[in-house]
Amino acid sequence: MEAIGRRRWAIAEGYIPSESAFSARALISHETACILNAGDQTAQVHITIFFADREPVGPYRIAVAARRTLHLRFNDLDNPQPIPRDTDYASVFESDVPIIVQHTRLDSRRAEVALLSTMAYAEG
Amino acid sequence: MEAIGRRRWAIAEGYIPSESAFSARALISHETACILNAGDQTAQVHITIFFADREPVGPYRIAVAARRTLHLRFNDLDNPQPIPRDTDYASVFESDVPIIVQHTRLDSRRAEVALLSTMAYAEG
Amino acid sequence: MEAIGRRRWAIAEGYIPSESAFSARALISHETACILNAGDQTAQVHITIFFADREPVGPYRIAVAARRTLHLRFNDLDNPQPIPRDTDYASVFESDVPIIVQHTRLDSRRAEVALLSTMAYAEG
Amino acid sequence: MEAIGRRRWAIAEGYIPSESAFSARALISHETACILNAGDQTAQVHITIFFADREPVGPYRIAVAARRTLHLRFNDLDNPQPIPRDTDYASVFESDVPIIVQHTRLDSRRAEVALLSTMAYAEG
Repeated sequence: MEAIGRRRWAIAEGYIPSESAFSARALISHETACILNAGDQTAQVHITIFFADREPVGPYRIAVAARRTLHLRFNDLDNPQPIPRDTDYASVFESDVPIIVQHTRLDSRRAEVALLSTMAYAEG
Repeated sequence: MEAIGRRRWAIAEGYIPSESAFSARALISHETACILNAGDQTAQVHITIFFADREPVGPYRIAVAARRTLHLRFNDLDNPQPIPRDTDYASVFESDVPIIVQHTRLDSRRAEVALLSTMAYAEG
Repeated sequence: MEAIGRRRWAIAEGYIPSESAFSARALISHETACILNAGDQTAQVHITIFFADREPVGPYRIAVAARRTLHLRFNDLDNPQPIPRDTDYASVFESDVPIIVQHTRLDSRRAEVALLSTMAYAEG
Repeated sequence: MEAIGRRRWAIAEGYIPSESAFSARALISHETACILNAGDQTAQVHITIFFADREPVGPYRIAVAARRTLHLRFNDLDNPQPIPRDTDYASVFESDVPIIVQHTRLDSRRAEVALLSTMAYAEG
């Protein structure tokens, strides 16, 4: 498939609730960056995390294989350091090949789940 | 009406919960690609589904008649094969005429419903 | 303020649940097209509604005054005809001056509310 | 990091419910403009609030430091005047450097929370 996407993406929202009404992985409060690499080369992606009151952290380095999607949980990032819970953050994705990035949150602080999702902002 | 839209669209998110608290079709957990063909020619659309750990599947071939909208449930796709439940996926839409694609999920795993929606990423 | 926005917008999603757990206007299941006219001229907007299985209906004609926002409920449209409930539809907005259109649904079929929102697709 | 973003953003939706089922700040019904300034200069941002039936109010002046994100609650704006509750509004953001703006609402009128989010409309 002809490559589709952009090389730089940003998500201004970011907040992982520390509480969850459930313990199953699928229902734990989480934020995801859904990344699609529809092209024929592995995507090397560098993620930078921004905060309200301190310098950005990163890069977090991930690879998305050719013709694969990676639904990356911000909850799982830990190198160079975990994303703090209950804390406002934002993120920028820089890839060496075109990718697509979509942002989703599942919030299960209460006994029901709430969802949000949006395409990230693309450039480049 | 003058045509409106683009020919290539991508949705990086994709996840159909296997559970539903309800059995009515409207309230079963589902994902939808809402496609609008506002132009005067039938749109022939090829959908490719991407996964985390195996090669893409497709094309799924659908037609959207001129001046019609099709709210296509990913749950209903079955040729060449159904979309697995509880599995991360992503999708690319390629049309021969301009269309508009919007992505929606209704999650009814719990006793209440949760919704998300976003315009897909457009190119071409 | 310098004008901001585009002249043509489309929303591929569209579905007004006929049921609501509440009778207060704010909590009745509804879909809204939030229109912002930040410019200094009234916007004359023509809306066309598309369906799955019949010809489009419209135009619905509305005006958005200069420097005003109109959060238009699709539930309230009735000329040339009301939007049917429990029915898939889509919409196109054509304005004579730049506007911004955002799509929101509040679904209160169950005892809690669910929300979705996205910027509409812009062109022109 | 190379600057990313745009200088003008608009959000056509806007509605802060006056009711909340909770008193904790995190769960009070609120709307947020998540602003990311990934660049190396402070962003001076002017916000104008639009209404259905009266002249716009503003500018609200805020600064977002270099390499920081600010998740600004519309609930907290009070100069030149607070945003009224239970009232339709819209907003335009004008920055002197590129930023990214994403719109989120948490609605806790009922005993569970509902969420919506979308990238704002960008221009310039």
